[in-house]
Amino acid sequence: MNVRINLQFDGTNYCGWQIQPEKPTVQGIISEAVYQITGQRVTVHGCGRTDSGVHASGYVASFETDSNIPVEKIPYALNSKLPQDIICTSAMEVEPVFLANRSAVAKTYRYTVDNNQFPDIFLQRFAWHYKYPLDEKQMQRAAEAFIGTHDFAGFAASGFSVKTTVRTIHSINVEKKNNIITIDVTGNGFLYNMVRIIAGTLVYAGNGRIKPEAMPDIIKSRCRQKAGITAPAKGLCLKEVFY
Amino acid sequence: MNVRINLQFDGTNYCGWQIQPEKPTVQGIISEAVYQITGQRVTVHGCGRTDSGVHASGYVASFETDSNIPVEKIPYALNSKLPQDIICTSAMEVEPVFLANRSAVAKTYRYTVDNNQFPDIFLQRFAWHYKYPLDEKQMQRAAEAFIGTHDFAGFAASGFSVKTTVRTIHSINVEKKNNIITIDVTGNGFLYNMVRIIAGTLVYAGNGRIKPEAMPDIIKSRCRQKAGITAPAKGLCLKEVFY
Repeated sequence: MNVRINLQFDGTNYCGWQIQPEKPTVQGIISEAVYQITGQRVTVHGCGRTDSGVHASGYVASFETDSNIPVEKIPYALNSKLPQDIICTSAMEVEPVFLANRSAVAKTYRYTVDNNQFPDIFLQRFAWHYKYPLDEKQMQRAAEAFIGTHDFAGFAASGFSVKTTVRTIHSINVEKKNNIITIDVTGNGFLYNMVRIIAGTLVYAGNGRIKPEAMPDIIKSRCRQKAGITAPAKGLCLKEVFY
Repeated sequence: MNVRINLQFDGTNYCGWQIQPEKPTVQGIISEAVYQITGQRVTVHGCGRTDSGVHASGYVASFETDSNIPVEKIPYALNSKLPQDIICTSAMEVEPVFLANRSAVAKTYRYTVDNNQFPDIFLQRFAWHYKYPLDEKQMQRAAEAFIGTHDFAGFAASGFSVKTTVRTIHSINVEKKNNIITIDVTGNGFLYNMVRIIAGTLVYAGNGRIKPEAMPDIIKSRCRQKAGITAPAKGLCLKEVFY
């Protein structure tokens, strides 16, 4: 059967999803746990790469197995083998054509900025601490410019080859509550570091360094230097994958 | 001058507040940081002991110093010496008679229960994962019995000598949101493990093992065995101290 699993992970101690020799990766840990519960060495397909230190509350992966373990028992079996910072929250049998990566039609990422003067102790692993004042209304205004289909070449780190740098952003919502700013971005796909550069650019909009009115031209320029900094990995979390 | 400092700490890696030989403690770490910034070995008075693994978002401590460091610079100076899991959020000069422990008139603790089927990855260090159904309305009903002045002898761990086991609870509020239950308890003082035993007892009320109507008699019995279990330390956080 083809099995879809939903995962949460605290990415602090991992070099991202994708398996790499000699490095701790989420895919490496999951693959080993799948082997331990099914006895089979299979490829566990993820819904996408994540950077070192990035978290997930709604990661999706899939693998094929001949094991006769009931699918509803898989989360319990996997969790008994997984370390505390990776959790399988559900499993279901899916059609043979389902592949966690290729079948995805959209994803939501959340970027969290801790805008307290001193870091919130409970968010230290999960938020970027930025202590200078940020105006979340300006951030939301700037964010509107990303919505739609654009060439996001200026919002990608180099060193990754892709067929096209055109992507569609469906929505971006900036909220501030108790000095914690969350930026939820939903799109059909993201370039390397794209959400982190969007977050860094919105922080520049929030501190006044970039005017919201300038955003459409910054996007059109396709120039990485005109955008903001790449926000730190630890503030990023893959929240949901849509199929 | 006599300095009051407010602290946050993630207690996961500490054996509580109080200094102990050969063990990592918050008081030990803070005392060393105070020495580094003032050049003076002084006693840092805490607002109370905390158990190993317990957290704080509003811990208060105080110390005397002859240092001429401006008081508003103390948080920055301390944080530059402190590890990432202890943060000084403010400092102010207080009257010579102020002592963080003796001057406190009330404290609020928050106990957090993660009632999701699988643990929430972001709360793993800060909540007790309890996967069976909990009815927060029954928990709140049971909680009302604690309010007021009672002999809480049945809600204390042994091994601690105190003059009296009578304490006053001013309020207890149980809230459930997205399967996360928070129990906020405010009182004039707490016996050893008292909040954790209250939390464990309220979980028994939530799962039906203890009826809310039985709570007054359980308290009156002064019998530790009639109360619930001692909830794990990691769910407990000292939220606020009142002076």
